[in-house]
Amino acid sequence: MSIQLGPDDTVVVLAHEQFPDRAKTAVGVLRYADYDVAAVLDRDHAGERVTDHVPDVSDAPIVETMADALAVDDIDALLIGIAPIGGGFEESWRPDVRAAIESGCTVVSGLHYFLADDDEFATLADEHGVDLIDVRQPPADLTVSGGEAGDVDCEVVLTVGTDCSTGKMTTTLELVEAARARGVDAGFVPTGQTGIMIAGWGTPVDRVISDFAAGAVERMVVEQAADHDVVFVEGQGTIVHPAYSGVTCSLLHGAMPDSLVLTHSAGREAIHGYEEFSIPPVATYVDLYERLAAPVADTSVVAGALDTRAIDDDSDAHVAVEEYGVELDAPATDPVRFGVDDILDTLR
Amino acid sequence: MSIQLGPDDTVVVLAHEQFPDRAKTAVGVLRYADYDVAAVLDRDHAGERVTDHVPDVSDAPIVETMADALAVDDIDALLIGIAPIGGGFEESWRPDVRAAIESGCTVVSGLHYFLADDDEFATLADEHGVDLIDVRQPPADLTVSGGEAGDVDCEVVLTVGTDCSTGKMTTTLELVEAARARGVDAGFVPTGQTGIMIAGWGTPVDRVISDFAAGAVERMVVEQAADHDVVFVEGQGTIVHPAYSGVTCSLLHGAMPDSLVLTHSAGREAIHGYEEFSIPPVATYVDLYERLAAPVADTSVVAGALDTRAIDDDSDAHVAVEEYGVELDAPATDPVRFGVDDILDTLR
Repeated sequence: MSIQLGPDDTVVVLAHEQFPDRAKTAVGVLRYADYDVAAVLDRDHAGERVTDHVPDVSDAPIVETMADALAVDDIDALLIGIAPIGGGFEESWRPDVRAAIESGCTVVSGLHYFLADDDEFATLADEHGVDLIDVRQPPADLTVSGGEAGDVDCEVVLTVGTDCSTGKMTTTLELVEAARARGVDAGFVPTGQTGIMIAGWGTPVDRVISDFAAGAVERMVVEQAADHDVVFVEGQGTIVHPAYSGVTCSLLHGAMPDSLVLTHSAGREAIHGYEEFSIPPVATYVDLYERLAAPVADTSVVAGALDTRAIDDDSDAHVAVEEYGVELDAPATDPVRFGVDDILDTLR
Repeated sequence: MSIQLGPDDTVVVLAHEQFPDRAKTAVGVLRYADYDVAAVLDRDHAGERVTDHVPDVSDAPIVETMADALAVDDIDALLIGIAPIGGGFEESWRPDVRAAIESGCTVVSGLHYFLADDDEFATLADEHGVDLIDVRQPPADLTVSGGEAGDVDCEVVLTVGTDCSTGKMTTTLELVEAARARGVDAGFVPTGQTGIMIAGWGTPVDRVISDFAAGAVERMVVEQAADHDVVFVEGQGTIVHPAYSGVTCSLLHGAMPDSLVLTHSAGREAIHGYEEFSIPPVATYVDLYERLAAPVADTSVVAGALDTRAIDDDSDAHVAVEEYGVELDAPATDPVRFGVDDILDTLR
């Protein structure tokens, strides 16, 4: 899966009625993607600017419609930057997608609903010679893992977590950026729809047939390892998740990482959306991830990343990070708040 | 998924060049299915009989081609009884499948390669009004697990293993039969192509989108639990498999079992097909399965099932089973050779 967007491209990100708090993909793209965001579409905030809401990302105007954005800039692509519960297509977005296609823009979507299967969009895209890219559509030629990711001549680092939404993608991307800033030749393996939109390629492991999930991860790790000295793999879910643990397990054994970074969300005590299941002690996770990996990969939790967004005060956040490090018996940080130098220092 | 075969139906099982040792589905069907097997196709053993190779199943001739089988009997269906690594279709089987369709037989396949997507077979099946049943095609309406299998009012027993092909399906089916013989109202949850072919229904967990794998297991467990006092769930793979561990993990957390039965193949020291990965000590598996399950299900390994096929002498096999029980610190047996009474006695 390649979405063919690079530093020379200009995109518009659709985030109607959800920017910024429920627009994880839009914010991720604004923060980490190397292409230019010309505008965000949010009819509830038209006339405002991105940095009115999210101070630490590249700024852009917020406009009401794709037509508004097209009136001001040459646009290469429209990205659907929100993912409603269920992953359906919201019909109120149709005029924006139509306008994008009619003006020759690529449309990139991470929805479960595939734009390429929508009769109107497919016909229109055909007429205008435009690509509709559904990033959640996995490649058709996936197969089982050959068990070979451990043979690469490259350090492989996987982010793991105590739950979903604990900052695995953010931690991975912060590590990639900081490693490159140090002059390290670092690669990134995107495994979820936001990571794929940011990187411009990748395979959505949660959408892959379960027999092929480890194989999909292996293929990406082996490809990236050929070109880089260290590869950071975006993790998913948690190994004790009632619904998604299989995805996490496939990542652990498919990537065969040298090092694990354990992410956690400060103050969270139960699995998000499955509140009857308590989050076990941090030491239990370290033990489980290491022991489960051991038969296929000699790996250990080398550092921790704590999402302290819920803690207002910086010194309180520092205390939380320190306590987390003690529980882990490893260096810890909040990657967004305090940077990732302590994590990078643990890598070989 | 229902394959619509019952006691009045007569089938032929394709197992070219692999019967019996690498024809797990063929042998499973011969041993446990309630429909009649008229012949096995294996061009390497044509002219011999099933019981020349497998003494304790219903007998049938081994013939070279589907045409040979059709010349002797009225056949209702051809079953693909082998599943190569990767699940591809072997082109040398094409004449047999073609002959089956042309004579009006249903064709049932557990391959990843769907017969219904093969242009020649689809067209031919259409012409002859024949069903192509791909048992690995999961239901279209699957969704994520709700984390509810632990709430059922029923004992749930899951078979787990030290590797693939260690006797999980066989152990599960022997437990179901023996429990019913004791008057216990026992249900069976088929999760792989052979179990589905034998039971006539089920969901192939390895073929489900990885996000939905635990949900597929949960749905079957909850359905069976409503009708039975104890439910035996067919396990898959192993939790330390380089390629398939995600499937195993989804089964463990999706089924939320009360009890685990650990299967192993006597003498096996490395993961089958991935020989560079050693099989860890049995105690490591007990520890891993129990600890990994713990955050969602309070479960323990209550018994062991050892496949002693590789051991000729019964008293040597007895010794191997005893040693396995000591390693497990739980009752052990070879379900096929010595029955499953010792396992059933451990259930509440």
